[in-house]
Amino acid sequence: MKFCSECGESVQLRIPEGDNRERFVCGACQTIHYQNPNAVVGTIPLHVDESGQPLVLLAKRGIEPRHGYWTLPAGFLENGETSAEGALRETIEETCAKVENLQLYRVLNVARTNQIHIFFRAHLPEPSFTTTPESTEVKLFPFEQIPWRQLAFPTVHQALRDFVDEYPDGPFTPAMHDITRQSWHELDY
Amino acid sequence: MKFCSECGESVQLRIPEGDNRERFVCGACQTIHYQNPNAVVGTIPLHVDESGQPLVLLAKRGIEPRHGYWTLPAGFLENGETSAEGALRETIEETCAKVENLQLYRVLNVARTNQIHIFFRAHLPEPSFTTTPESTEVKLFPFEQIPWRQLAFPTVHQALRDFVDEYPDGPFTPAMHDITRQSWHELDY
Repeated sequence: MKFCSECGESVQLRIPEGDNRERFVCGACQTIHYQNPNAVVGTIPLHVDESGQPLVLLAKRGIEPRHGYWTLPAGFLENGETSAEGALRETIEETCAKVENLQLYRVLNVARTNQIHIFFRAHLPEPSFTTTPESTEVKLFPFEQIPWRQLAFPTVHQALRDFVDEYPDGPFTPAMHDITRQSWHELDY
Repeated sequence: MKFCSECGESVQLRIPEGDNRERFVCGACQTIHYQNPNAVVGTIPLHVDESGQPLVLLAKRGIEPRHGYWTLPAGFLENGETSAEGALRETIEETCAKVENLQLYRVLNVARTNQIHIFFRAHLPEPSFTTTPESTEVKLFPFEQIPWRQLAFPTVHQALRDFVDEYPDGPFTPAMHDITRQSWHELDY
């Protein structure tokens, strides 16, 4: 940030009065420009086929970051949305899959990138999905074929690992984890 | 937002190519300025006194919005923090109370104000706290004396109501709720 979004003059990084952190403050109109973490919301779409086999829907990323790696459908929460509405929208945008019955599952802090990721368990009643501008491949995976080493993000790894480990008996109790570089490497492949 | 924070030229509200929402886009350098929801993090500080009575710590707001109303300690998550770190910091900043053993309890979507509020249950081992620049009064309340009609925010109301209703047997399972104008009025006073 270099210029004030309210008046167009230069901003400086300084600690405002009564604060204890550096903020971008306008030298002219004195507006303080706070910068805060973003929320990423996504789903773990589960489809159970006619033989009773559980399958999870993953998308191969067609955009950066992590182009070519596999992910659960997820993206930035938009203004005016609830977390579940955002997760549903992202799932449609990335896979054209219509999931139902979203249940809060994991809240993951990624302090290093200023993000909170929220994943919902979700039911995919019909095995209906397609590639999209954001995904070059969309595919249902039996758990034993999940490409663990080709997953795009540590939060996807954590949420999916926990889900597969708990399936089918649960209890699927919502929980929060902190994601660090270390924690990703410690995940059991 | 009126000016580009990267180059200082005017921004226009329009739908960028490949997007489906209006964003502020710079007419000169073409930077897209996304605006996304913020996270608010806080605690439900519980102190159990020598007689075994449970008490919850509330702060009377000395700043706007909702000056003069009672709140659980909470505030905006900062970059570089986990949710629990932020909730701990806000509790200290608003009440000087040092809580321990934070446990995820409620995730509350407030789509109307573009916010997600995350509340943790927390243990307050010592009844030690003071007023602060943000709080004109800080006080431990027996549950039957909680000023329900003088609470500052619907999210505080929801988290505290759920906690008191579940106390002491739990199960205190983390859960998500959507907060609407309607849902606040429906809360049982």
